[in-house]
Amino acid sequence: MVKVVLDAFGGDNSPLAPIEGALEAIKLQEDLHVVLVGDETKINKILKDKKYNTSQISIIDAKDVITNDESPTVAIRQKPDSSIVKAFNYLKENDDAVALVSAGSTGAVLSGAFMKLGRIKGVSRPALCPILPTAKGGIVAICDTGANVECDSKNLVHFAIMANAYIKNNYGIMSPRVALLNVGTEDHKGDALRKETFEMLKSLPNINFVGNMEARELLSGDVDIVVCDGFSGNVLLKSTEGAILNLLGMLKSDIKSRFSSKIGYLFMKKTFKALKKTLDYNNYGGAVFLGCKKLIVKGHGSSKTKSFTECILQAFNMNKAEVVPNLEREIIEFNSNLNNEE
Amino acid sequence: MVKVVLDAFGGDNSPLAPIEGALEAIKLQEDLHVVLVGDETKINKILKDKKYNTSQISIIDAKDVITNDESPTVAIRQKPDSSIVKAFNYLKENDDAVALVSAGSTGAVLSGAFMKLGRIKGVSRPALCPILPTAKGGIVAICDTGANVECDSKNLVHFAIMANAYIKNNYGIMSPRVALLNVGTEDHKGDALRKETFEMLKSLPNINFVGNMEARELLSGDVDIVVCDGFSGNVLLKSTEGAILNLLGMLKSDIKSRFSSKIGYLFMKKTFKALKKTLDYNNYGGAVFLGCKKLIVKGHGSSKTKSFTECILQAFNMNKAEVVPNLEREIIEFNSNLNNEE
Repeated sequence: MVKVVLDAFGGDNSPLAPIEGALEAIKLQEDLHVVLVGDETKINKILKDKKYNTSQISIIDAKDVITNDESPTVAIRQKPDSSIVKAFNYLKENDDAVALVSAGSTGAVLSGAFMKLGRIKGVSRPALCPILPTAKGGIVAICDTGANVECDSKNLVHFAIMANAYIKNNYGIMSPRVALLNVGTEDHKGDALRKETFEMLKSLPNINFVGNMEARELLSGDVDIVVCDGFSGNVLLKSTEGAILNLLGMLKSDIKSRFSSKIGYLFMKKTFKALKKTLDYNNYGGAVFLGCKKLIVKGHGSSKTKSFTECILQAFNMNKAEVVPNLEREIIEFNSNLNNEE
Repeated sequence: MVKVVLDAFGGDNSPLAPIEGALEAIKLQEDLHVVLVGDETKINKILKDKKYNTSQISIIDAKDVITNDESPTVAIRQKPDSSIVKAFNYLKENDDAVALVSAGSTGAVLSGAFMKLGRIKGVSRPALCPILPTAKGGIVAICDTGANVECDSKNLVHFAIMANAYIKNNYGIMSPRVALLNVGTEDHKGDALRKETFEMLKSLPNINFVGNMEARELLSGDVDIVVCDGFSGNVLLKSTEGAILNLLGMLKSDIKSRFSSKIGYLFMKKTFKALKKTLDYNNYGGAVFLGCKKLIVKGHGSSKTKSFTECILQAFNMNKAEVVPNLEREIIEFNSNLNNEE
């Protein structure tokens, strides 16, 4: 039995959506056990009406919750009975617990991972790596999207190695195309950080580095992994989300204002449904916090049941694909080559 | 007569689109004179079939062209007979020439502005400031989007002051809402650069600083000016463009694949036309290179006739609104306050 620890009180739709998501996940994987962390009374109230294999679910009681409005590091220290802190404690203390899933405060999940769990030896900085759908029907990973707003070139190269191990082992893309986010595609583009990182990535034997990439190409499907500092990665991710939401909003309000467009919409429902499905983050699991000693999957704050199921299965599959040990091995190899060169 | 200098050999659709754009612009403004810079023979060949007021057009011969593939600084030095270099020389040497419009290589336009024209005294760094349409039907300016990939807090504050003078005087928005691009909205968010800039912007009496902004909000219509370093501003602009293009592309290919959606599209044509019009950069003039001694408007590389007309009129109107002297006055005032404090 593989144990995934679930923060049952993280996210806008908790505790119902995480709990139902867990029950769905254990139906699909009989080797999976989900540890629900949160107010036991409330969890039991939801569970009592459900049918499920009771050997696949357990509960860790946690009466407190960390909200988005709190300072993450202070909250992790001052709320030992919160669902996130208790979940991290359980994850750390139990060898058969392999991963944590939470849709709670991103800051609290990242701080908890740092403070309670720790990073893999040799990893300079863990990084947040979400997945987006592309126009060609595939996926693209962005690493980092906000865990590290200030980075050096070694950090960025570690992001590339970690995301490469993740995408290769978990999505079966044999030689992921890795690009460096930059202000132009030419080799010499960008600031000192980008120029240095470019040269380091170019020299890595195990990375299929395809050069600099402009932000415009993110969804093109021509790249599998985008490497960037957490500040510009955050801008890249959020402006893409914002543009799509605003465009769909503009489309919707214009359709509503015209009679003929309303008719047209009825004929086009399948198209909009397909587009919505493609763009729905609930279908893509969560952002992985790469470089920690165990697997951390951070779901979107507004995750629904389906998204929790996806995040839990993602954690289960990443464990099966041995993402953590693979990543650790490649980081050690890179660091030792770097030390030999110096 | 106000003279606007036009690089007639910049952009994918040159020389036809710039020349036709100029003829359209002089029809709309009888006080406007456009100086067409480029191969005189080719320009005359296009002009000879057109009807226009000949006192509003003149030509400066330039046999060479700088392309996107060349190193901008090298090209500016080594191609004295290129349309961009000749245009900058004319702009510099003639008091009645107030602005330059080009849809050529961005790098060459920026380098030419630095090397041939120079910046306004007191401006630490000129910055590129394009305009985007928002979901509420207004506009939003981003400053800087790539002229300065490495910035300090004083640079960012200068960007805010310059964009504020531009938007206030040219678009008649009395107290533009200025936001700082950051990874979160809370006051303490971001790296050292953002924290320092936040405090400086907060203390400016003439700037309506509304705090930190996430990239997601760019098109929301809740902000008039986004202040950012050129690296993240470039990512912000290009990922927004890329997301919109890819989303429309996905929509189009899905519509083509379904019979009912094709029918629906016929009913929704007006909606798509309205959306296309809203999103078409040809309707929004060009990106202004703020902080140079005269006005520089950089059109999109794929500008059509209409876009050239808009860029030329934008330059004409900015001159009328006295954007350069206003901007200069506000920068001097800020710098002297800063010196008094120190």
